[in-house]
Amino acid sequence: MAVITNIEDLKRIYERRVPRMFYDYAESGSWTEQTFRENSSDFDLIRLRQRVAVDMSGRSTASQMVGQDVAMPVALAPVGLTGMQHADGEIKAAHAANEFGVPFTLSTMSINSIEEVAEATGRPFWFQLYTMRDTDYTSRLIQRAKAAKCSALVITLDLQILGQRHKDLKNGLSAPPKLTPRTIANLMTKWAWGIEMLGAKRRNFGNIVGHVQGVSDTANLGAWTAEQFDPTLDWGKVAKLMEQWDGKVILKGILDAEDAKMAVKLGADAIVVSNHGGRQLDGALSSIRVLPEIMDAVGGDIEVHLDSGIRSGQDVLKALALGAKGTMIGRAFVYGLGAMGQKGVSTALEVIHKELDTTMALCGEKNVANLGRHNLLVPEDFGGRWA
Amino acid sequence: MAVITNIEDLKRIYERRVPRMFYDYAESGSWTEQTFRENSSDFDLIRLRQRVAVDMSGRSTASQMVGQDVAMPVALAPVGLTGMQHADGEIKAAHAANEFGVPFTLSTMSINSIEEVAEATGRPFWFQLYTMRDTDYTSRLIQRAKAAKCSALVITLDLQILGQRHKDLKNGLSAPPKLTPRTIANLMTKWAWGIEMLGAKRRNFGNIVGHVQGVSDTANLGAWTAEQFDPTLDWGKVAKLMEQWDGKVILKGILDAEDAKMAVKLGADAIVVSNHGGRQLDGALSSIRVLPEIMDAVGGDIEVHLDSGIRSGQDVLKALALGAKGTMIGRAFVYGLGAMGQKGVSTALEVIHKELDTTMALCGEKNVANLGRHNLLVPEDFGGRWA
Amino acid sequence: MAVITNIEDLKRIYERRVPRMFYDYAESGSWTEQTFRENSSDFDLIRLRQRVAVDMSGRSTASQMVGQDVAMPVALAPVGLTGMQHADGEIKAAHAANEFGVPFTLSTMSINSIEEVAEATGRPFWFQLYTMRDTDYTSRLIQRAKAAKCSALVITLDLQILGQRHKDLKNGLSAPPKLTPRTIANLMTKWAWGIEMLGAKRRNFGNIVGHVQGVSDTANLGAWTAEQFDPTLDWGKVAKLMEQWDGKVILKGILDAEDAKMAVKLGADAIVVSNHGGRQLDGALSSIRVLPEIMDAVGGDIEVHLDSGIRSGQDVLKALALGAKGTMIGRAFVYGLGAMGQKGVSTALEVIHKELDTTMALCGEKNVANLGRHNLLVPEDFGGRWA
Amino acid sequence: MAVITNIEDLKRIYERRVPRMFYDYAESGSWTEQTFRENSSDFDLIRLRQRVAVDMSGRSTASQMVGQDVAMPVALAPVGLTGMQHADGEIKAAHAANEFGVPFTLSTMSINSIEEVAEATGRPFWFQLYTMRDTDYTSRLIQRAKAAKCSALVITLDLQILGQRHKDLKNGLSAPPKLTPRTIANLMTKWAWGIEMLGAKRRNFGNIVGHVQGVSDTANLGAWTAEQFDPTLDWGKVAKLMEQWDGKVILKGILDAEDAKMAVKLGADAIVVSNHGGRQLDGALSSIRVLPEIMDAVGGDIEVHLDSGIRSGQDVLKALALGAKGTMIGRAFVYGLGAMGQKGVSTALEVIHKELDTTMALCGEKNVANLGRHNLLVPEDFGGRWA
Ligand SMILES: Cc1cc2nc3c(=O)[nH]c(=O)nc-3n(C[C@H](O)[C@H](O)[C@H](O)COP(=O)(O)O)c2cc1C
Ligand SMILES: Cc1cc2nc3c(=O)[nH]c(=O)nc-3n(C[C@H](O)[C@H](O)[C@H](O)COP(=O)(O)O)c2cc1C
Ligand SMILES: Cc1cc2nc3c(=O)[nH]c(=O)nc-3n(C[C@H](O)[C@H](O)[C@H](O)COP(=O)(O)O)c2cc1C
Ligand SMILES: Cc1cc2nc3c(=O)[nH]c(=O)nc-3n(C[C@H](O)[C@H](O)[C@H](O)COP(=O)(O)O)c2cc1C
Repeated sequence: MAVITNIEDLKRIYERRVPRMFYDYAESGSWTEQTFRENSSDFDLIRLRQRVAVDMSGRSTASQMVGQDVAMPVALAPVGLTGMQHADGEIKAAHAANEFGVPFTLSTMSINSIEEVAEATGRPFWFQLYTMRDTDYTSRLIQRAKAAKCSALVITLDLQILGQRHKDLKNGLSAPPKLTPRTIANLMTKWAWGIEMLGAKRRNFGNIVGHVQGVSDTANLGAWTAEQFDPTLDWGKVAKLMEQWDGKVILKGILDAEDAKMAVKLGADAIVVSNHGGRQLDGALSSIRVLPEIMDAVGGDIEVHLDSGIRSGQDVLKALALGAKGTMIGRAFVYGLGAMGQKGVSTALEVIHKELDTTMALCGEKNVANLGRHNLLVPEDFGGRWA
Repeated sequence: MAVITNIEDLKRIYERRVPRMFYDYAESGSWTEQTFRENSSDFDLIRLRQRVAVDMSGRSTASQMVGQDVAMPVALAPVGLTGMQHADGEIKAAHAANEFGVPFTLSTMSINSIEEVAEATGRPFWFQLYTMRDTDYTSRLIQRAKAAKCSALVITLDLQILGQRHKDLKNGLSAPPKLTPRTIANLMTKWAWGIEMLGAKRRNFGNIVGHVQGVSDTANLGAWTAEQFDPTLDWGKVAKLMEQWDGKVILKGILDAEDAKMAVKLGADAIVVSNHGGRQLDGALSSIRVLPEIMDAVGGDIEVHLDSGIRSGQDVLKALALGAKGTMIGRAFVYGLGAMGQKGVSTALEVIHKELDTTMALCGEKNVANLGRHNLLVPEDFGGRWA
Repeated sequence: MAVITNIEDLKRIYERRVPRMFYDYAESGSWTEQTFRENSSDFDLIRLRQRVAVDMSGRSTASQMVGQDVAMPVALAPVGLTGMQHADGEIKAAHAANEFGVPFTLSTMSINSIEEVAEATGRPFWFQLYTMRDTDYTSRLIQRAKAAKCSALVITLDLQILGQRHKDLKNGLSAPPKLTPRTIANLMTKWAWGIEMLGAKRRNFGNIVGHVQGVSDTANLGAWTAEQFDPTLDWGKVAKLMEQWDGKVILKGILDAEDAKMAVKLGADAIVVSNHGGRQLDGALSSIRVLPEIMDAVGGDIEVHLDSGIRSGQDVLKALALGAKGTMIGRAFVYGLGAMGQKGVSTALEVIHKELDTTMALCGEKNVANLGRHNLLVPEDFGGRWA
Repeated sequence: MAVITNIEDLKRIYERRVPRMFYDYAESGSWTEQTFRENSSDFDLIRLRQRVAVDMSGRSTASQMVGQDVAMPVALAPVGLTGMQHADGEIKAAHAANEFGVPFTLSTMSINSIEEVAEATGRPFWFQLYTMRDTDYTSRLIQRAKAAKCSALVITLDLQILGQRHKDLKNGLSAPPKLTPRTIANLMTKWAWGIEMLGAKRRNFGNIVGHVQGVSDTANLGAWTAEQFDPTLDWGKVAKLMEQWDGKVILKGILDAEDAKMAVKLGADAIVVSNHGGRQLDGALSSIRVLPEIMDAVGGDIEVHLDSGIRSGQDVLKALALGAKGTMIGRAFVYGLGAMGQKGVSTALEVIHKELDTTMALCGEKNVANLGRHNLLVPEDFGGRWA
């Protein structure tokens, strides 16, 4: 059996194992994919300072995110259709996260429902909210998350309307997959995925089907989003959602210092500097490039997390050394899940942990809390020189 | 059938469908094609600012170009031999433009004549003028455009002599195609194109054959241009042409601030910042790179349009946000026309419109009129640092 | 038959036609070939300013080099073994140069001897000198060039010892080719070259064999150079050579401003800014990158020529606009010669002339004498920013 | 037989000849291999100044390293498992080094033991020390090196814990190779290597097996290192090792000016600016990029050597001209050894010597001692512009 030594290994297995439609869904960015690509490649521009002859014994990566203990500051990001990547994917990913000691975030667009995940894991998780035109439904969703004892509400701000991903339109993405000849041909080469999926608790949008009127489970995802998501969501409405929730709130999808300041004003507990993994505004800067500017603007006032583009422990280290208190990974755990189910998610977390730990040591540091700009060489014009 | 999600999709179908000679004619730049390539790639250097939690309902892309209402500020550029890309190409493109609500520009070097297009569409269009050594012919051309009620005259300034495109010389480009063995072999694989072309109104230069003495329809394009086009055209002559026309005038092919100022002095209604799609001076900067300098020089004094390299609504958005009042697309509509006729041109326009509209929304804007530098991250040295 | 539209076309035919050993000899630089590659690619960094509505009639590329009239300021550079690229190559290249009206330079390491070229062409040419340890031989060479009425002496300064070209060592380069099995196999695919070569006046080093004692015509080129060339050549010796010659002197192989000043001090008529086509010091800057600095240092005091990397009329235009009075082309004419003999050299000159002429027009200029920095956009740090 | 003209040629033969597992072991860097790649490519950013008309006779590359005469300032770096690249590899490399007149360094992780190499060569060499948790063993190792009359102790500081190389984990690297089906299949294509290896003095870690308790010769290298190497090594412990040795000490693995200053404080004789050939902290800068900063910090106080990325005499020249007194080569000699045994190492040294000597001449210099910044064009921001 293949020895897994990095996230890329998981991705290769994932690609072979999962129906093309769902692989494409995860492994793409909007339009030209410029932002999607740069999310990862921009991490490489930051370099590390090696220090030697430092006692490296007794290292630790433990930390906290929104006041909760984490084995390392890396949460699983909310990812729609996770349950299509692997049977009962949300439940399995949540199990792996609990085992490792990091937060799991359930998407509004998940397959397993809030209640199913809560029951299966018996442990608090984070819930990510998309707001719908049907405000009653939104309110009920918040109540259901409360009832499930979710420990934080993640409100996503960067998807009121959908950035276009060409492949999803071409594939006619839906959950479960619509059975066109091409889809069937592809599914037939993915029998392991299919057999497991036969035993899955659910194969449609668990939080939505049966909760929003008239939503059939084969709806075209793009069309459905365009119809149902609330395009008028503004800061006023965000404030009201926060009131309804009345618990830890993380605002996700901030790329601009002005927006970060608004998040502080509203009293959120944390923001996630994110461009939705390069899936929304193509042409936006990578998250890691805007992080320094956002730290300058609000670093002292709010806890800052970062996602988009993280594929290794080195990437995590760079975000932390630039001031982020925590990070989120999307595709990195999806690759593991699609490749090997729960064990794959665990492997992804272990790979990242080992990279973070060893690299920290080679930088001469023993504790993630001590990481800082002194460990990095950040290009002078990393944020860009804009006219 | 293929789902078309971007302009690139149309280009792929176009390449398969149209005789190589005409594909090459459109899809090339002069000499090394440096300017041709950078026309598009330079747009990618400009990045977009994402803003969130903004009410995105009720958006509009409607605007005006030289005082005329447009559904979006994107005109079809004058493209020679359009009627060789698809039977009656000029008429079909004009229909699609009218339907969508954007201007169509007929080239002097078109296949369908001014009169044919006027008759078929019954709607005003723009006419693009090349000046010939035979000044009588030039005057008659202007009179014919007037008679056809063309709503603007586009005088092209950057093609007195022809920049060399290697493939056209190698292909022995002509309209209709000269029948060499290689051409015939290629045509035989393009039967759909050929069958439609059999029914075309015209297969030679409609504005020229029968209007200029001694011009046969199989003339080698390069040689013919070298013989007939007027190399002595200067600002004085341009002024006289404007007098003859006595209507809206757009001066096309300006890349230099000094030339832009001359255009203002002459009292033109608009200029098109353009390098002829990279087909003339190879080594010239891309249009989008010189736009800021030209806006600085004449932005307050004249309406500025831009073409060359536009392949998406994002490109349009960037030109507008830098101050252009309108844009023109050449190849982007030709791809559509060659791929699917009138429907293809409509599709090209729809693709660009959706990209413009959605991207505008993700930038937090609701109206093209509000787009500005605040939506962009323009590299400090975008125009170049020149000694 | 193939339509030739640029120098690259000639190179493709050349590659097919000439034995690999001689193709490799010409088409390589020393060691990693960094300087060889950049010689050409650095021209692309300089951009051109398009000007429009300028009367473009009555253009001229005629000029002067070291006081001699030239149809365009482009001389044929001295190229060793030219007569191995095509039978009687030096004579054919000289004919083509005379016909076009540009200078031809005969290398010390030529196949056809000074006397043979002089007799065949009946027209003055330039002679390029390498100095040997055997100073008597060197003196005789100078006398022979005088006797042949050579109109200028080109003293090459950058090849006292040989930069290593891997392929020449691997091929065991020699003239005529040593007959190893691999060489024979390759020669058998090049029958046209071989048949013509059977009729050649000469197939060994015409200026050397019979003039230097103990030199056999199959000598390994690298070994021979190492043994015979004078490694002690310094400015004092150069001065003495100039005295012996007592006519127009061009010092070739200058890349450093200090060396350019020495050339002025010695009273040379011109220098050639050159890195020997990237064949000597790998890692040296391209000629075009150092030209501005050298113009600043000595531009007012001496005529400056440039070679290395020129492949088009646009390249020539850039060198002239930066202040060079003339240029030399090496490989560009060798490609033509190897591809099609004398006609190929003529074609190369015509291609370059047309590119120079048309591009000049699109820049709004009518005469090479008027070209200047105002036609160019030169990157601010073109010469490099060095610590 | 192939003509070897550069180090790359040796690498190609090496790749064919040696079992994949050992090729992979040498030809890789840690994680993404960014630092590994840049170690070499960064040399190309430094350019050379050509000077002409300088008498080039009587050149010399002789110099000194830590007070010892060297034919050129290029030592063989310590390379673990050298004896797996070729039977008795350490002994053969040492012979070649002695013959050429440059130092050989024996790794703690060598196959041939200190005693074996000393006996076979009868000449002093340098010994490289890794420190183990078992401090007694470390002390005995130092005593053994003293007994063998090693002329310098090289203490490596950048490998307390192991940077991850994916391929070593996938190959299950061990010495001698573990016999998995895949390994056997690969070995069967490498019969020449195998036959020689049958006659080798040793096929396990000669300095360790029999000297550290409980170490079997098939131990997985990564696991073994993690268990045995001392992660608590700090400057205090380094000082004690230096006391025990009481001879010439070279501290290897310094990349940071602060660490270089500590080395000076401890009274070391030299440091090696090194990132372990890109095998430890991926993301660290290349050695050549940090050299100038380290020269500024300690250049006057200690002898500075450099390794990592050197593949040619030009690379050596650049390091020397930036102020290094000497250099080390790792892979460059391993390629030669794996390709052709002792003769291959000799060839590697000769290739590098010729490149150094000729390039020095073309720069107008006759002696390595005279090389300096005046021979180089170093990019202004070579060390980076870091915020
Ligand atoms: C397939 C996929 C589906 C996603 N679905 C959601 C979602 O439902 N809600 C949300 O807030 N973010 C969603 N995201 C964005 C992720 O939460 C996260 O921001 C992104 O994946 C981070 O980038 P990375 O994948 O490069 O780590 C999704 C991302 C992917 C790749
Ligand atoms: C095939 C082709 C033919 C063209 N013919 C004309 C023409 O006849 N008159 C003119 O003014 N411009 C002509 N142009 C230039 C276009 O009007 C326009 O400036 C250019 O296509 C814009 O670049 P784009 O193709 O990248 O959008 C032509 C362009 C192409 C590609
Ligand atoms: C195959 C070849 C042989 C050459 N032989 C000589 C020579 O004998 N004497 C000389 O001064 N320069 C020689 N050169 C250098 C040329 O004169 C000239 O500097 C160089 O070719 C210019 O670069 P280009 O080939 O890129 O135009 C030679 C160049 C080539 C390519
Ligand atoms: C296969 C291999 C094994 C190595 N083993 C050791 C070692 O045992 N001890 C040590 O100090 N350095 C070791 N190094 C690092 C080398 O001493 C040296 O720093 C490095 O090879 C220099 O980079 P280069 O290979 O690009 O020349 C090793 C390097 C390689 C490539």
